[in-house]
Amino acid sequence: MKTFINPPKEKWEEICKRPEISSKNLTKQVNAIFNDIRNNNDNALFKYTLEFDKVKLKKLEVSKEEIEASSFLVSDTLKDAILLAKRNIEKFHQEKFVQKNMVETSKGVRCWQEYRAIEKVGLYIPGGSAPLFSTVLMLAIPAKMAGCKEIILCTPPNKEGEINPAILFAAKITGVSKIFKVGGIQAIGALTLGTESIPKVYKIFGPGNQYVTAAKQIAQNYGVAIDLPAGPSELLVIADNTANSVFVAADILSQAEHGTDSHIILLSTNINIINRVMNEIKIQIKALPRKNIAEKALEQSNAILLENINECISFSNMYAPEHLILAVYNTRKYISNIINAGSVFLGNLSCESAGDYASGTNHTLPTNGYARNYSGVSLESFVKKITFQEINKTGLKNIGPAIELMAEAESLYAHKNAVTIRLKNL
Amino acid sequence: MKTFINPPKEKWEEICKRPEISSKNLTKQVNAIFNDIRNNNDNALFKYTLEFDKVKLKKLEVSKEEIEASSFLVSDTLKDAILLAKRNIEKFHQEKFVQKNMVETSKGVRCWQEYRAIEKVGLYIPGGSAPLFSTVLMLAIPAKMAGCKEIILCTPPNKEGEINPAILFAAKITGVSKIFKVGGIQAIGALTLGTESIPKVYKIFGPGNQYVTAAKQIAQNYGVAIDLPAGPSELLVIADNTANSVFVAADILSQAEHGTDSHIILLSTNINIINRVMNEIKIQIKALPRKNIAEKALEQSNAILLENINECISFSNMYAPEHLILAVYNTRKYISNIINAGSVFLGNLSCESAGDYASGTNHTLPTNGYARNYSGVSLESFVKKITFQEINKTGLKNIGPAIELMAEAESLYAHKNAVTIRLKNL
Repeated sequence: MKTFINPPKEKWEEICKRPEISSKNLTKQVNAIFNDIRNNNDNALFKYTLEFDKVKLKKLEVSKEEIEASSFLVSDTLKDAILLAKRNIEKFHQEKFVQKNMVETSKGVRCWQEYRAIEKVGLYIPGGSAPLFSTVLMLAIPAKMAGCKEIILCTPPNKEGEINPAILFAAKITGVSKIFKVGGIQAIGALTLGTESIPKVYKIFGPGNQYVTAAKQIAQNYGVAIDLPAGPSELLVIADNTANSVFVAADILSQAEHGTDSHIILLSTNINIINRVMNEIKIQIKALPRKNIAEKALEQSNAILLENINECISFSNMYAPEHLILAVYNTRKYISNIINAGSVFLGNLSCESAGDYASGTNHTLPTNGYARNYSGVSLESFVKKITFQEINKTGLKNIGPAIELMAEAESLYAHKNAVTIRLKNL
Repeated sequence: MKTFINPPKEKWEEICKRPEISSKNLTKQVNAIFNDIRNNNDNALFKYTLEFDKVKLKKLEVSKEEIEASSFLVSDTLKDAILLAKRNIEKFHQEKFVQKNMVETSKGVRCWQEYRAIEKVGLYIPGGSAPLFSTVLMLAIPAKMAGCKEIILCTPPNKEGEINPAILFAAKITGVSKIFKVGGIQAIGALTLGTESIPKVYKIFGPGNQYVTAAKQIAQNYGVAIDLPAGPSELLVIADNTANSVFVAADILSQAEHGTDSHIILLSTNINIINRVMNEIKIQIKALPRKNIAEKALEQSNAILLENINECISFSNMYAPEHLILAVYNTRKYISNIINAGSVFLGNLSCESAGDYASGTNHTLPTNGYARNYSGVSLESFVKKITFQEINKTGLKNIGPAIELMAEAESLYAHKNAVTIRLKNL
């Protein structure tokens, strides 16, 4: 980690910069695969799965037997852990979408809004080194609670054509409708366009590598919505002299092990804390299986000494971190000053991994500065609002003349006439 | 309008299709203008304003004097109409963003979420034939109510370098921070990148032609969020034999006058209603200044006879209209079946122009089928949510072991260690 001692405010924006991601332009490749899927449907999916996942599948959909078997393949202790996480996520996501109270905006003009679940959603769960069953929980639980009718999950198979049983178990207990063995650009293409096996959906959720991210971005040109623009994971820690540097080092490493492109910023009002955290990182990193990944991530991360906690909060608001740990005395004092952040962890015992798995908050959060303009995933991500209005004679008399005047001033005479013709008829 | 008599369900999707929009690929042009703005700032804006709006400006920002003068240039009756609309929009958008009740998901694990306004927002108001001051109301009112600190409005000047006073008046009474005389791609570029005069914003709202739409789409690659993917305006009317065909014709024409690309679908259970509406359109259209536009829009629109109202609702859900007029007996009976729609108008007296101007609902709505996966603009469009968690010793004991197990099962050992190291320390 690079260290900065009291950098002047003019330098903050520079220090805040995330490492450049050298994202290849994948538009051509994505569009080619999408076109292939449109023309050849499931056959294209079988082909790409053989090419990229090195397995020749006979069937894309995970069978009922495979799903049932997952219960026996996951250890009881892990099942209990997953069920505990599920309960907490359900408790936190329980928002009451009460029908909006009707507002009588003018006498005789009643307006309200109602929520409707997005009927068909697609969840993408990456494969690779780690089976991200926690992401199944974070996406399928709110989808089910919102009332989505079709919840389609796609995840790449391993070379034996299998899906990790923890992913199947998580999908089973959360009420996923159908699970398909397909990953990468082709999974996003299938959810976007639909094939013989895989239903077309209206919104696609979930993380992924640069190929999946590019495919999700391009899927939007085909009328599909997505959860969030994705970027590498990141953490900002604010630590004063009450912080436990052993814990802070552990949190920084838990972020660093995500990927070589993870980004971490440590802000402190105390140089000793910074030094102690640095030393502690050196000790703890030795024991990590993903040491090499963490080391790369740390190389591009920063530790910064600032004057006081309010300065640290200002810096954090400028950076807009996905995860913010507040390891300071009297955390509650600073909450109202936090403007741009995805999820905030208060005090020495609230580690980021708690939010990643089991505190109950959602771990699908805005990265790359998007905490300035996006929220993380919540129940609301799976619904949309419809507004209603009901106008009676009194109402039309009350607002009709104003509508006529405004429509005329905007040169929209048919808009005006729709009112005039009714007013004459009253 | 083309007429379809009881088309079979297999044909619905075909009939639902919006007319193809021959959108030129404007990516190159947009990126070129954005680069020019990045390099030459305000100078680039002056240049493009001269090129596209045919006026040589000395200053981009609308002066205080110009804003004050607008009050004298707008008639008192129009001002009163605008103020009535403002009151109704405020009443409807008054959502209470109460701090989310804290949930104790496990004993000792407290989670909640808080709302924060997006600090800087940009509103784009098109120029051209009609001064869309109503859109100023629809965007600036919720922005102000949400608590956005900087509300920047851009709108193109006329050839005299002036902005329509009704737009300035609406901006003034709604608390817009700054108004700039700049339109088109260059306005979106300025809001995205910032220049000497125009502040960079985090989210851009507002309608526009295909250039503005392309620029908003590309602005997303620069980290900016946008309100909605835009498309031509549209209306679906469901009319039974209690519908007033004169009113229905007027509503169809008010949609048709928006643009030649407007799209309208009339569904009815009664062929006489369809015939009467068609005749009535022929009569009413004669008096319209925008007759030619309306005629073009009607050419590509459809009238469809269906078996019963529930079939009409199913068809409407498949089409997912921006505006839905329910001119049927006992409208309330059908509300819960409406799944995909932007804004719904109930009964013979609830005309679409009421929602466009003064009922209080927002007129910035999802088009082009996006009512399946997007909501219209509301107060929520101007805020984002941050989640918080605070875990004490009991909490960590309660959820810590589950986190350790799940992190290990996902091969994320540093995540596990962040908990282990804390549990040991308790």
